[in-house]
Amino acid sequence: TEVKKIAVIAGDGIGPEVVNEAIKVMKKTEELFGLRFEFEEGLFGGIAIDEKGTPLPADTLDMCKRADAVLLGAVGGPKWDNNSKELRPETGLLGIRKELGLFSNIRPAVVFDCLMEASTLKPEVLEGTDLIVVRELTGGIYFGEKFRRQGEAGEEAVDTCVYNVTEVERIVRQAFEVAMTRSKRLASVDKANVLETSRLWRETVNRIAPEYPEVELEHVLVDNCAMQLLRRPSSFDVIVTENMFGDILSDEAAMLTGSIGMLSSASLGEGSYGLYEPVHGSAPDIAGKGIANPIATILSVALMYRLTFGYHEAADRIEQAVKQVLDAGHRTGDIAVDPSKAIGTTEMGDLIIAAM
Amino acid sequence: TEVKKIAVIAGDGIGPEVVNEAIKVMKKTEELFGLRFEFEEGLFGGIAIDEKGTPLPADTLDMCKRADAVLLGAVGGPKWDNNSKELRPETGLLGIRKELGLFSNIRPAVVFDCLMEASTLKPEVLEGTDLIVVRELTGGIYFGEKFRRQGEAGEEAVDTCVYNVTEVERIVRQAFEVAMTRSKRLASVDKANVLETSRLWRETVNRIAPEYPEVELEHVLVDNCAMQLLRRPSSFDVIVTENMFGDILSDEAAMLTGSIGMLSSASLGEGSYGLYEPVHGSAPDIAGKGIANPIATILSVALMYRLTFGYHEAADRIEQAVKQVLDAGHRTGDIAVDPSKAIGTTEMGDLIIAAM
Ligand SMILES: CC(C)[C@H](C(=O)O)[C@@H](O)C(=O)O
Ligand SMILES: CC(C)[C@H](C(=O)O)[C@@H](O)C(=O)O
Repeated sequence: TEVKKIAVIAGDGIGPEVVNEAIKVMKKTEELFGLRFEFEEGLFGGIAIDEKGTPLPADTLDMCKRADAVLLGAVGGPKWDNNSKELRPETGLLGIRKELGLFSNIRPAVVFDCLMEASTLKPEVLEGTDLIVVRELTGGIYFGEKFRRQGEAGEEAVDTCVYNVTEVERIVRQAFEVAMTRSKRLASVDKANVLETSRLWRETVNRIAPEYPEVELEHVLVDNCAMQLLRRPSSFDVIVTENMFGDILSDEAAMLTGSIGMLSSASLGEGSYGLYEPVHGSAPDIAGKGIANPIATILSVALMYRLTFGYHEAADRIEQAVKQVLDAGHRTGDIAVDPSKAIGTTEMGDLIIAAM
Repeated sequence: TEVKKIAVIAGDGIGPEVVNEAIKVMKKTEELFGLRFEFEEGLFGGIAIDEKGTPLPADTLDMCKRADAVLLGAVGGPKWDNNSKELRPETGLLGIRKELGLFSNIRPAVVFDCLMEASTLKPEVLEGTDLIVVRELTGGIYFGEKFRRQGEAGEEAVDTCVYNVTEVERIVRQAFEVAMTRSKRLASVDKANVLETSRLWRETVNRIAPEYPEVELEHVLVDNCAMQLLRRPSSFDVIVTENMFGDILSDEAAMLTGSIGMLSSASLGEGSYGLYEPVHGSAPDIAGKGIANPIATILSVALMYRLTFGYHEAADRIEQAVKQVLDAGHRTGDIAVDPSKAIGTTEMGDLIIAAM
């Protein structure tokens, strides 16, 4: 088998611990399925600020560019929160997205049966929720011109939200493609009654829609979507939206599943290149204690196998093993009903590997 | 007593029906408390487009400017949804906010005990939720420059989000004032890790905070706030945020209470001037059937009495009457457990008036 190059960015907080388990899982799939990986590690985020004076060192970026896929743990923490913009972990995150051309963020929000109770939503509402938010990731107000100026009423700040038709087309097309592999329902979210970028967005969606006649399309205003996610989460299949709305709605969707410690995400560029990471943060409060839940990162590997490498059999095996271990009642502290019975990060990883 | 001028904009859909009940309630308070109102009606929204060719006719605007407060029913409906921008009801809404200088939108999200079950959130999570979103209403990306242009990659759309320090100061100060009348906890929501306007926002909040040493202040990122509203709604007291974030978060907060048919809102300008309206929409599907729930509009009158006129006793009486009628088990169709026992719009209004 061809050797696949994996750029590993463990990052901050619990990042190194959860990434470690994910790599163990990948090595197990080398054994079981004859896959071959070459891992290279790089500094990124807070630790890179501390050691190299920048959140995204050039050699880390080069390493990612050389790789076939990137596995990311988590970045950030209170330590760097008051730094100036150039010395903040988020700046590295925005930089890596732009530099690697990761224009599409795929955020599945699924409910794990065993975690149904962990949600603040009623089980009967949540039942069957299995949706994906496809978020545009390299455009919009995140990357438009930003500046301060003196206006008539004192200092002013300006952010610019820009989308061109090509950017909208590629993310929308990808969302239609994702919908085609699922229940063929797509909700496009915008604020077309107020924003010009949203009107361009909606026109573009409507222009592309006839290419996917099987997909049932609805346009939902962002404020209404924030409500409908709460009202009828299980009625959504694929949601596609721009960068800022996607930031808010994907987090809302993740939280309502009650399974935020279990959710994985992919940030995809052109071709099959992708960066994979858990949805949860760096959890500095529990870092280094060996108690973090590695499942979201392990499931991010399964997502990588599917979306970048087409290793579906190995992905299935990982997902089944996770399910089996959970069904057997094993829990890390964050998802334990009885915290006294909680197992650690390494134990969870080992159990999943054993179940594979 | 001084006669107060009320500009009445019934609007579209169920607007006229619910406004009618609210006016009956106001007339009852004239009797009971010796208040005096002069009502003047104006066309606005879809009906104004149909009859006058514009959503915000000049004489409606003049009428509002002459008044002490505005009572609004609801605007919009599918009939006008595909109109060009100038002929859409929303354009009237944005216009009236700007023209009347209504920079502050006050959106209480409270749980009515009898509607606890109507929420999709678990009762134990929702219990005690009583928060107010203070949304900036005349700035930000809603009112910045918007245009199309040809870029290198084809057509581009641009929206501009602008805030000056004066705009931020006045809304933030107002939020601190609101917090002072309540539990003295303020959450300021921004996206300071990405947006320049958010950094100006946060600096301004931090500069004003020392004027209110009793208020406990937290800064929450907008994506995190969308999650925390779901996780711990009852822990919020006052939330202050910019226009676009406020649009999304206030709707999310309203929906999670399960009481959206009951929620009122105020849009305030300088001084005590304000526009009052129910949070719910024009519900074209049930318009004209006499089954709409008038409670949100009636409670908007109570809000008007408090915030514009300082008629606290009359406001108390209205709110108590609503509670009493609900406690007695009377329900309109939207909030009825047993729809066969639902009462109509007029009956609900009459019962509330009788209870006053
Ligand atoms: C850290 C921040 C810049 C980032 C974003 O807003 O995109 C984060 O919230 C995310 O969703 O990955
Ligand atoms: C209709 C629309 C322009 C409006 C807004 O976005 O402000 C509405 O959603 C609201 O919240 O009042």
